[in-house]
Amino acid sequence: MGYRDTLQLTPDRRLRHFLTIEGLPRATLVEILDTAESFFQVGTREVKKVPLLRGKTIVNLFFETSTRTRTTFELAAKRLSADVVNLNISTSATAKGESLLDTLRNLEAMHADLFVVRHQHSGAAHYIARQVAPHVSVINAGDGSHAHPTQAMLDMFTIRRHFGEFAPLTVTIVGDVLHSRVARSQIHALTTLGVNEVRVVGPRTLVPREVSALGAHPCDSLEAGLEGADVIIMLRLQRERMQGAFIPSEREYFRRYGLTEEKLALAKPEALVMHPGPINRGVEIASEVADGPRSVILEQVSNGIAVRMAVMALTVGSHAQEAAS
Amino acid sequence: MGYRDTLQLTPDRRLRHFLTIEGLPRATLVEILDTAESFFQVGTREVKKVPLLRGKTIVNLFFETSTRTRTTFELAAKRLSADVVNLNISTSATAKGESLLDTLRNLEAMHADLFVVRHQHSGAAHYIARQVAPHVSVINAGDGSHAHPTQAMLDMFTIRRHFGEFAPLTVTIVGDVLHSRVARSQIHALTTLGVNEVRVVGPRTLVPREVSALGAHPCDSLEAGLEGADVIIMLRLQRERMQGAFIPSEREYFRRYGLTEEKLALAKPEALVMHPGPINRGVEIASEVADGPRSVILEQVSNGIAVRMAVMALTVGSHAQEAAS
Amino acid sequence: MGYRDTLQLTPDRRLRHFLTIEGLPRATLVEILDTAESFFQVGTREVKKVPLLRGKTIVNLFFETSTRTRTTFELAAKRLSADVVNLNISTSATAKGESLLDTLRNLEAMHADLFVVRHQHSGAAHYIARQVAPHVSVINAGDGSHAHPTQAMLDMFTIRRHFGEFAPLTVTIVGDVLHSRVARSQIHALTTLGVNEVRVVGPRTLVPREVSALGAHPCDSLEAGLEGADVIIMLRLQRERMQGAFIPSEREYFRRYGLTEEKLALAKPEALVMHPGPINRGVEIASEVADGPRSVILEQVSNGIAVRMAVMALTVGSHAQEAAS
Repeated sequence: MGYRDTLQLTPDRRLRHFLTIEGLPRATLVEILDTAESFFQVGTREVKKVPLLRGKTIVNLFFETSTRTRTTFELAAKRLSADVVNLNISTSATAKGESLLDTLRNLEAMHADLFVVRHQHSGAAHYIARQVAPHVSVINAGDGSHAHPTQAMLDMFTIRRHFGEFAPLTVTIVGDVLHSRVARSQIHALTTLGVNEVRVVGPRTLVPREVSALGAHPCDSLEAGLEGADVIIMLRLQRERMQGAFIPSEREYFRRYGLTEEKLALAKPEALVMHPGPINRGVEIASEVADGPRSVILEQVSNGIAVRMAVMALTVGSHAQEAAS
Repeated sequence: MGYRDTLQLTPDRRLRHFLTIEGLPRATLVEILDTAESFFQVGTREVKKVPLLRGKTIVNLFFETSTRTRTTFELAAKRLSADVVNLNISTSATAKGESLLDTLRNLEAMHADLFVVRHQHSGAAHYIARQVAPHVSVINAGDGSHAHPTQAMLDMFTIRRHFGEFAPLTVTIVGDVLHSRVARSQIHALTTLGVNEVRVVGPRTLVPREVSALGAHPCDSLEAGLEGADVIIMLRLQRERMQGAFIPSEREYFRRYGLTEEKLALAKPEALVMHPGPINRGVEIASEVADGPRSVILEQVSNGIAVRMAVMALTVGSHAQEAAS
Repeated sequence: MGYRDTLQLTPDRRLRHFLTIEGLPRATLVEILDTAESFFQVGTREVKKVPLLRGKTIVNLFFETSTRTRTTFELAAKRLSADVVNLNISTSATAKGESLLDTLRNLEAMHADLFVVRHQHSGAAHYIARQVAPHVSVINAGDGSHAHPTQAMLDMFTIRRHFGEFAPLTVTIVGDVLHSRVARSQIHALTTLGVNEVRVVGPRTLVPREVSALGAHPCDSLEAGLEGADVIIMLRLQRERMQGAFIPSEREYFRRYGLTEEKLALAKPEALVMHPGPINRGVEIASEVADGPRSVILEQVSNGIAVRMAVMALTVGSHAQEAAS
């Protein structure tokens, strides 16, 4: 196909920004996974560091506090030997009446190479990516309920490490799809990588109708969704993000949509249980499942560092004469 | 002349502290500019890092929050390969009843090499410089309405890069001179470097009488100030710093002192427009001027990193056997 | 003796965690002191950095704010070339409902090598050490009123540098022993290292009866405690930690327990005066004593970096094939 995502990809199809999975070709996702594979071992070495981005400046531009996400990006940057500056934008110059664009222009003038952007509004990372200078890349670290593409890619990386391929897999996403920036990114990644089937399970109020258009199949019950699944991705119930009464009660939610050992038995015997964290134990997932033998939740965290290193290396490297990967 | 600034300069006239432009000889300012020139290219390299201050400890001692200034010093320190620690003093041990001097003594005992000091009170950096141990340098990153010498030097650096020399230039400073720590430092730097003329424009309430004594010429109107100027330095209207009714309204201020394209036409055709940032668009400067072809506002930001690297290298280097420059 | 502290020591008696002095054999304390000796010179070099922990990830896990302690550990880690991440836990994922254990598991999965833990509750560091993965070490940076072992060891290091040996020494600890995590750790260290006598002086309400069981001798008055002492350790009056009326007034406290030059004359002529800082001048110690010739308070701060480097190197090194020391 001749279509090219002109914002995220350079003319020679290198990853300039990483904002959303939507619109990226399969080859790009595979390149991210392959690059992450090369960084995976770094985390297990005595010296967890490579000199790839030495002398590069990475700015964590967080308009919304997220210690966990900030920490994973900060560690990934440090393991690539980059210099990292953390900016909590709500307390910075914008409070002195400086516009966001002026803040960006200033950081560019300081020769920043990469902005890692976290924002409470959907589309913020795209907006910033459209404004930045040619030498600057942008990674979306979560924007509103829109996208969280590095989270989705670490899930893909985890799946590929276990199954080796995507084509035969049935993947079931369970929970608050409506408010989840992760879920949208996951559905795009899974369909692009060509899994057999993506199923979506959740209360009707939390499963938007558009998931069918994205290529996912809504299921009527958790039991129907789990039947024969290879991978079960539990979403976090975004309690702090929910407004209004989408669910009757956490207890009732757990009864119908919480993953227990009993329900998990409906999936394939070797099925993986995934969760982006942080976990609400006893709300969306029973502790014995979260800590059980099929759970790869902590592997996801380790893989997240490798995937973020990969995306940083690819985007910053897209500006270099030679590929960084 | 036999006078020597015994606080800022060592007996062999090396820069031990950088607190204010006042009292520094022309040779020192030129040395800062020359050293900054050598760091200027570092920011444009693939690897934006030199090992000059590796193993040195730089403490950002901020008694007043300033994300922008802290970031520029942090980046400058990291590009010199120094270790940087950020201390927000209002939240540290002084809150436990420790005196400022005890805090300083402790940081010295931890073998800090350089304090970058930001304080809301004029004279704070001088006070600290007088107290520190012989192996420690102090850089003033803004003290009250007194001085902000690295900002002034980055302005000089920007002017020199464009014009090559200072002698033929007419420089006009416009705005809230009274509350501006930048303006005082600029006037000292410009007269020391020997520009032809320094003009000052602003509401009478915001232009202190002492500027004449400093060698600057107050002008009655912006139009008179701009006539034939080579460089126009717009000051930020320190809205958060102003107490009382110095100006009638922002609208009225812009009408009389805001820089527009129309007024800018009074200056020389190749005149530079400068501003220390952050900009109040439509208050002290029109957007089309700030973003226009004569504006070097973002160059100033880039140059700020080079100048801060230079001042860090010179002050820390003044303690070494061999010059770091 | 056959007893081994199985939490803090590995089977081959290497220091895996450093949580408390209690239960550690003399050989381990001596190893810490000897290792610190090798790092002592690093702080005085031109390049204050060794590559020992390059590529290691150290997480400052602070559940209680302490800029001073955090800074010393951060500097120690950077001088060992480790990557450091500062986490203020009260603002992190635990606020999103994540349990402490899940936070720990996540940081482990990110391949953290060492947690430096500061907590307001006694026993917190032990609890965390019992939970962490085999590849992770824990250093207690102060837990409630229980222990602050690196502070105690830097005191021991300071004493050994001055006297060379512990056996002949009489050490007097003065002040708020009840609320002091430092005092308990000091008594354990001093008795383990075999000083001649440990004396404790303070208001009865602030000297717990158990000190006798620990091997320390309570004295009735400061004068009795100082008589012939080689080392005087003044404790900080934990004003912010005290609840209820343990002392009549600060003025009265100083009159009875404050160290003045006059009282100091009762000790040996070459006696050292120590204090963990921050100092309450005129409350527990007179300024002329704190700044006087017998005071080694700032040496303690310098030594603190060397001791923290030692403990970091030993604990992280306990996981390596070869010893790091």
